[in-house]
Amino acid sequence: MDAAEFRRRGKEMVDFVADYQENIEHRRVYPDVEPGYLRSMIPSEAPLEPESYEDVLRDVDRVIMPGVTHWLSPHFYAYYANSTSFPSILADLLSSGIGTIGFTWAANPACSELETVMLDWLGKMLQLPEDFLSETQGQGGGVIQGTASEATLMALLSARLKTVKCVQESDPQRSEADIISKLIAYTSEEAHSSVEKASIIGGVVIRMVPTDEHFSVRAETLEKMVAEDKATGYIPFFFCATLGTTPCCAFDKIDELGPICNAENIWMHIDAAYAGCAFICPEFRPLLNGVEFADSFSINPNKFLLVGFDCSAMWVKKSADLTRAFQMDPEYLKHEHQGSGLVKDYMHWGIPMARRFRSLKLWFVFRMYGLRGLQAFIRKHVELAKTFENLVRGDNNFEICAEVVMGLVCFRLKGSDELNKALLKQITRTGKIYLVPCKLRGRFVLRFVVCGRTTELRHIQEAWKHITELSSELLQNLFDHEGKEN
Amino acid sequence: MDAAEFRRRGKEMVDFVADYQENIEHRRVYPDVEPGYLRSMIPSEAPLEPESYEDVLRDVDRVIMPGVTHWLSPHFYAYYANSTSFPSILADLLSSGIGTIGFTWAANPACSELETVMLDWLGKMLQLPEDFLSETQGQGGGVIQGTASEATLMALLSARLKTVKCVQESDPQRSEADIISKLIAYTSEEAHSSVEKASIIGGVVIRMVPTDEHFSVRAETLEKMVAEDKATGYIPFFFCATLGTTPCCAFDKIDELGPICNAENIWMHIDAAYAGCAFICPEFRPLLNGVEFADSFSINPNKFLLVGFDCSAMWVKKSADLTRAFQMDPEYLKHEHQGSGLVKDYMHWGIPMARRFRSLKLWFVFRMYGLRGLQAFIRKHVELAKTFENLVRGDNNFEICAEVVMGLVCFRLKGSDELNKALLKQITRTGKIYLVPCKLRGRFVLRFVVCGRTTELRHIQEAWKHITELSSELLQNLFDHEGKEN
Ligand SMILES: Cc1ncc(COP(=O)(O)O)c(C=O)c1O
Ligand SMILES: Cc1ncc(COP(=O)(O)O)c(C=O)c1O
Repeated sequence: MDAAEFRRRGKEMVDFVADYQENIEHRRVYPDVEPGYLRSMIPSEAPLEPESYEDVLRDVDRVIMPGVTHWLSPHFYAYYANSTSFPSILADLLSSGIGTIGFTWAANPACSELETVMLDWLGKMLQLPEDFLSETQGQGGGVIQGTASEATLMALLSARLKTVKCVQESDPQRSEADIISKLIAYTSEEAHSSVEKASIIGGVVIRMVPTDEHFSVRAETLEKMVAEDKATGYIPFFFCATLGTTPCCAFDKIDELGPICNAENIWMHIDAAYAGCAFICPEFRPLLNGVEFADSFSINPNKFLLVGFDCSAMWVKKSADLTRAFQMDPEYLKHEHQGSGLVKDYMHWGIPMARRFRSLKLWFVFRMYGLRGLQAFIRKHVELAKTFENLVRGDNNFEICAEVVMGLVCFRLKGSDELNKALLKQITRTGKIYLVPCKLRGRFVLRFVVCGRTTELRHIQEAWKHITELSSELLQNLFDHEGKEN
Repeated sequence: MDAAEFRRRGKEMVDFVADYQENIEHRRVYPDVEPGYLRSMIPSEAPLEPESYEDVLRDVDRVIMPGVTHWLSPHFYAYYANSTSFPSILADLLSSGIGTIGFTWAANPACSELETVMLDWLGKMLQLPEDFLSETQGQGGGVIQGTASEATLMALLSARLKTVKCVQESDPQRSEADIISKLIAYTSEEAHSSVEKASIIGGVVIRMVPTDEHFSVRAETLEKMVAEDKATGYIPFFFCATLGTTPCCAFDKIDELGPICNAENIWMHIDAAYAGCAFICPEFRPLLNGVEFADSFSINPNKFLLVGFDCSAMWVKKSADLTRAFQMDPEYLKHEHQGSGLVKDYMHWGIPMARRFRSLKLWFVFRMYGLRGLQAFIRKHVELAKTFENLVRGDNNFEICAEVVMGLVCFRLKGSDELNKALLKQITRTGKIYLVPCKLRGRFVLRFVVCGRTTELRHIQEAWKHITELSSELLQNLFDHEGKEN
């Protein structure tokens, strides 16, 4: 395929994507396929000779589309969103077209520098303390990680190294392995599973901190655990706070937790993957008070800021904590400005060395929406969630299970877990809308997240109507069944 | 931006990318910018109100392009390539357009299943042993990692867990931390820095294995080191072999190393990031003999198979080794087919949980080129490298520093490292072609990698002409200078 054919095929693909998104709501949001459906639909080996592009595109419709869970559908209410938008898709296309792999400044100065400035832009939109910004020429700065999981892992690994060095300063004989074996990380029992995964990768113990009645970690609980662990010879070194937990969007009280972490030399990382995006709205910003105590902080613009996956923005107060963990400089990666302090070699800031030109997505989206446009987008989603909450509250068969702060509503049928599991099974089977559950205080709960960029009031109303129809059937069956039994 | 505007802007962007690639050879391949050039060219804050798309696109030309290192230029001979192509860019656009985040099968069945089948296709193209394939319904299978670094890290972490479990079986009292403190990993002194990075993340000691005169790790060297380490109470657990090292594309002798690893219970991972792609050509496949002894194996289609970054293909013989390391199943990620053995939840196969729909890139590229087309592409690059080698050999001022097997030629001016550094500096300053150096046996060497999809004979000839012109000047200056001194 040469450039001329690419022009033609590329334009067709743009139309394909536009058609897909314009008509997406007429598709079954959760696919009706059985495990293994795809293998039998395509050959078992790659072709020897080139095929026609028409055949490939036809197969996208024939083979791929029937098996897709349509994340961009307004009927998609699961997980947290892939909050993408057309400007983001355009920027991503540009990134693919430039085809750069930006590990060092020299590998692509524009890629390194735009990333630095975009993280400053976003940091200011969030009103982060100056020590997290690069423009102040201090020790802090921002970086794009692929996912929140990687941001958390980087924070934990940096904290591990920092603590090892610190302990060895007062006790030079003590081996790294011995110190690591005594390290303890903490996070909320409500934290995302990626925090536990990071601890396993880092080879350190993690303790889950119980939450209060609002599913928030409180200072005294953490304080007590830290004291206990220190008393038995352990070294508390890392606390991952969550702002906007995955199950129910709860908020740890970082303004009271931060001072404890600082006093105890515990690295505080804040994982605000979803909810952190909303802090660009002044009315939500108070939830971030206390960020000044944090060592690192991350949000996923791909969850709630109209930027397509993958894009997790992370800021650190002392970037050297991150970079010195992995400072490796083989000859083939050296360049003349390295170590000058003037440039950022982002390969030292993350797990993978190589990286796409992802800051373009931020640049395009920030400029095409403007801060006000992004705020309006967030507020609209929060409002739609409130609407759904009110619908649930208006129905006596249902209950709301956690405070609705942003775009997530946790609810359930009053009754057993089995009943709620049966309801969710029906919802998934029917495939008209898609939601996933969570556990709250051991109970099975349904999560309804306003996800789609194009979700409107009518979708919310339809979704609720659909849920209540299915639940009525279920309750009727149950009633009939119980009637028969009596 | 609505779908209608996206249709228009998307088509313009397709033309922008096509124009960029068609005219790329007229651009200075290595940019002429100073550190910090970009910050002063754009505002220091995001706009409040939306801007016009024209302005954004204009700024791509004004702000971004002058600072780009043009990886897709035929004058780019650095690192290893981002081996992208138009079909790959189209597939990536489709992936952005679908906007899926495929962590579990349920999150997108098509994404999970196409990945499985594409890794089988590619595995067969490479003639991998059946135990690495999924279709045999054995324990093996393939996965797409973002980068080779992540593949190596996953292999090391899986080996770590496996060894801990194994030691604890015979010695249940021994703590995980104590075992990990005794683990030793091995890799070539010529291995990529990502292997050392993986060992640091995993918190294990790594030893660099000296190479023979061909820069290859040999069995007896490894054997001796393993014996020494065992004698002092250490536990050898992981060996990362390289096929196609980064400095000079050397090949470890895996057919003699494999049996040792198997006998010693050492996990053998093969990092064939670049060179592994060439094993789809029968004439190169013998270099992979011995893969049957490996536990895991990875290649980067984004380095030499016309697939755009990011895409690293990894196969394991026992996928449970990988997945059980991080089997975490919060309620919100459960689904009905989980654990049935019928589906793959790739979130357990890698570091990040969430992932793009990357198998589309493989599918499009394999079908649009066919195996023969891909082979032809690789052979052409190897031939061009041979041509360059011959040009170097024909010039008495230069020497070839390592055997030329694929698309990389290591060469230098006969003379001091300073002389060669001066030459490279001139090349980089002039910006007509771009190369990076390496160290071989302590000497400073220039690497010339045929990278571009559109690199032709004339580019190679021009590049050589340019290099010899610059070196003649240098040598002349040196001569004049020495003349004056005498
Ligand atoms: C609070 C929180 N943290 C982390 C994650 C994981 O994000 P990622 O997929 O970017 O690793 C999620 C995902 O929903 C989340 O809700
Ligand atoms: C042999 C080898 N392994 C690993 C890598 C790193 O690849 P990635 O950027 O995909 O992590 C490279 C990069 O050139 C390489 O040559």
